[in-house]
This record gives sequence, C-alpha cells and structure tokens, in this order.
Amino acid sequence: MTRRGQFITFEGTEGVGKSTQLANAADTLRGLGVDVVVTREPGGTPMAESIRELLLAPRNESVDETTELLLMFAARAQHLNTRILPALEQGQWVLCDRFTDATFAYQGGGRGVSSERIAMLENLVQGDVRPDHVILLDAPVETGMKRARSRGDLDRFEQEAVSFFQRIRDTYLDRAQAAPGRYSVVDASASLEQVTASIRDLVCKFHSDLL
Amino acid sequence: MTRRGQFITFEGTEGVGKSTQLANAADTLRGLGVDVVVTREPGGTPMAESIRELLLAPRNESVDETTELLLMFAARAQHLNTRILPALEQGQWVLCDRFTDATFAYQGGGRGVSSERIAMLENLVQGDVRPDHVILLDAPVETGMKRARSRGDLDRFEQEAVSFFQRIRDTYLDRAQAAPGRYSVVDASASLEQVTASIRDLVCKFHSDLL
Repeated sequence: MTRRGQFITFEGTEGVGKSTQLANAADTLRGLGVDVVVTREPGGTPMAESIRELLLAPRNESVDETTELLLMFAARAQHLNTRILPALEQGQWVLCDRFTDATFAYQGGGRGVSSERIAMLENLVQGDVRPDHVILLDAPVETGMKRARSRGDLDRFEQEAVSFFQRIRDTYLDRAQAAPGRYSVVDASASLEQVTASIRDLVCKFHSDLL
Repeated sequence: MTRRGQFITFEGTEGVGKSTQLANAADTLRGLGVDVVVTREPGGTPMAESIRELLLAPRNESVDETTELLLMFAARAQHLNTRILPALEQGQWVLCDRFTDATFAYQGGGRGVSSERIAMLENLVQGDVRPDHVILLDAPVETGMKRARSRGDLDRFEQEAVSFFQRIRDTYLDRAQAAPGRYSVVDASASLEQVTASIRDLVCKFHSDLL
C-alpha cells in the first residue's frame, strides 16, 4: 500500500524568497528519493490558472471583496480536488506556493474580510484537509517590498501600501503562534545561505520523522 | 426620497422563452413610466461576464462541482453589489435573466450539489436579499430542448441529457410551490401570444400593487 504523501505549503509576504526556497526544498526532497510535485496558488491547473488571471489582472472595475474571496476558493477547490489530493494519494509530496493561510492573511488581515467567512469557505472546500506543514518565511515588510520592486512591475496586489503588508505579516505570525506544531517560522531576513540551510534542515526533519 | 425599485428574476429551463419575455416585461414596465435595468446571470458586469465565460467554455479539464458553484456565486456577488443593489437603491427596477433559483435548480437539482451548501453561499453572498418576484416560465423539457437546439450550437450545459433538465424543472416547480407569494408560474408551452399577455398582466399587477 502506498503511504500518503506530505502536503507542505510555503507562506509569507512579497519578496521573502518563497519561490527560491520552494525549489530548494524540492531539490532536497528529491535527493532523499521523494517524488515531489511543485505547484502554486491561486492556480495549479489550467482552469485555476484562468481564475488566477482574472484575480490578478489590473482592471477598471473595482472587484467586490466577496467576489475576490469566492474566486480564490473556486481556484482552490479545482486545484485541491483535481491535482493536490490525487498526488498525495499516490504517495507524492506536494509543495505549494501559498494556500489557505494566504487567504486568511491577505483577504482577512489585509482587506478586513471576517475570518469567520474565510473559515466557512475553508470548511466547505477542504473539509478537514489542512497542510501537514506550513513553512512561513518571515521578514520585515520593507525588506520584502524592496526585493519585490527590484524584480520589476508590481501587480494589483503589490501596489498596496506598506501598512497592508504589515497586517498580512501580523496575521501570518498569529496563525503560526496558534499552531506551532504545524507551522515553522523561518527568518527570511537572514542571508540566502542561512535561509537555504534552514529550509534544507526542516524538510530533512519532516522526512526523517516519518521513517 | 426615492422608493426602492423591484427586483424581478426570470427562471426556467432551456428554450422556454426567458429572453423574449424579459424584453416584453421591460417594454411593458417602461410604458408605465418605470426606469428598468435588464441584466443576466451569470454575468451583468465585465468581471462577472469574464467569470461567465470561464463557466460556459467547453474545456478538456473536468470542472470540479465546488469550483463551478463558487464561480457562480463569485459572479453573483460582483453583479449584486456593483450593479443590482445600486440600481434598486436609485429606484430602478431590475429584471434579471436567472438568479439564485437557477443555482438551486441546475447545480442542486441537476448536478446533485447539496441544497445546504447552496443556501450557505446564498446567505454569505446575499445576506437577506431575495428577488421581490420570481417569474418561472415552465414547459415540458422536450418542448424547450427543441427550441434551444433550433437556435444552433449547444454550450456545455445544453449538451446534458433530458433527465438532467427534468430534475431542474422539478426543482424549480418545488421552489415555486414552497413560496407561492413570491413565485409566479407561467405556462410557457402556450402560444407566444398567450405567454406574452400573461407576462404583461403579471408585471402590470406588480406595478399597480405598489400604487
């Protein structure tokens, strides 16, 4: 019988190095013989990527906050049911760039959507599925914003004010503190070498804990 | 002070003549001096129309049932909050081709999504907003299918089997029976002249009841 894979999500504000560290974690796990799927939210399937484009496109029409929330969870339902869950059942480990913690942080903490509404949709879409591990790359907001800006154009989300990202960071940290067994907070303002080593150690531990 | 407008929705299975009768109702009301907005679901704003396109496009990827449901309500939130409610508050009457009854009928009755899940999203998106009047154009499924087919290509929804549309019709009729004060069932298998006269009489009554 195949053992169910682990579901690991990478969270954090703009420019904290999620993509780089997700690739690092994938390489480390592959080196340990793990079959790894790398994906991202919102997106991860053609349908979900189309929803992502709708969400991220700058537009003249102002997007209603409930619409944004429902689109996020529509993409998530598609991604979870058609890609993430089938992979986990086949024993693959799924590394995902952002998941529902990002909704609590961005729409909840950032835009002030009630966390009860988000939790209701989380239950409707996910049932009792939650990530096995959440890796939170944490850095002062200014550090991350500088890195994001240096990469070029900012999309609709990245045009927001610093205070918005401060509320997002605070929400992430609150959630990590409330469930320390499932969350690992990594200091993303350390040097690249240090962060890379921390992530490598973490995923090696997740792997060895299961042996 | 401006009196709030009336929110009237037109429901029914494929080919029952909703578009024709919606135009007839709009003409009748305009003749009575009412400022009328004609719109449709899913759609009604550029963002909501983009979501409609995602929903209706035939695609290789099978669309998860929860994804479809959340996309419907995402479009509805945008339509309701940015178009329908502002119009009603300005005293305009809103005539809408399909609304939440269609979700209960198509996703619920048709596809077997639990009506509790639909009702939960209805409350999340609409609060206590419901149409003032629902006009249900009812006809045997075969009658409507023939008319829809004669119009040309069938989209993803219209490719479904007759039994699917039978369940939709039954759900509509059950809902109308449960709240006869808010629903008006019109026999859409009658002659065009008869149906047109019935709709004209109905909206005249809605108007005179408010005088």
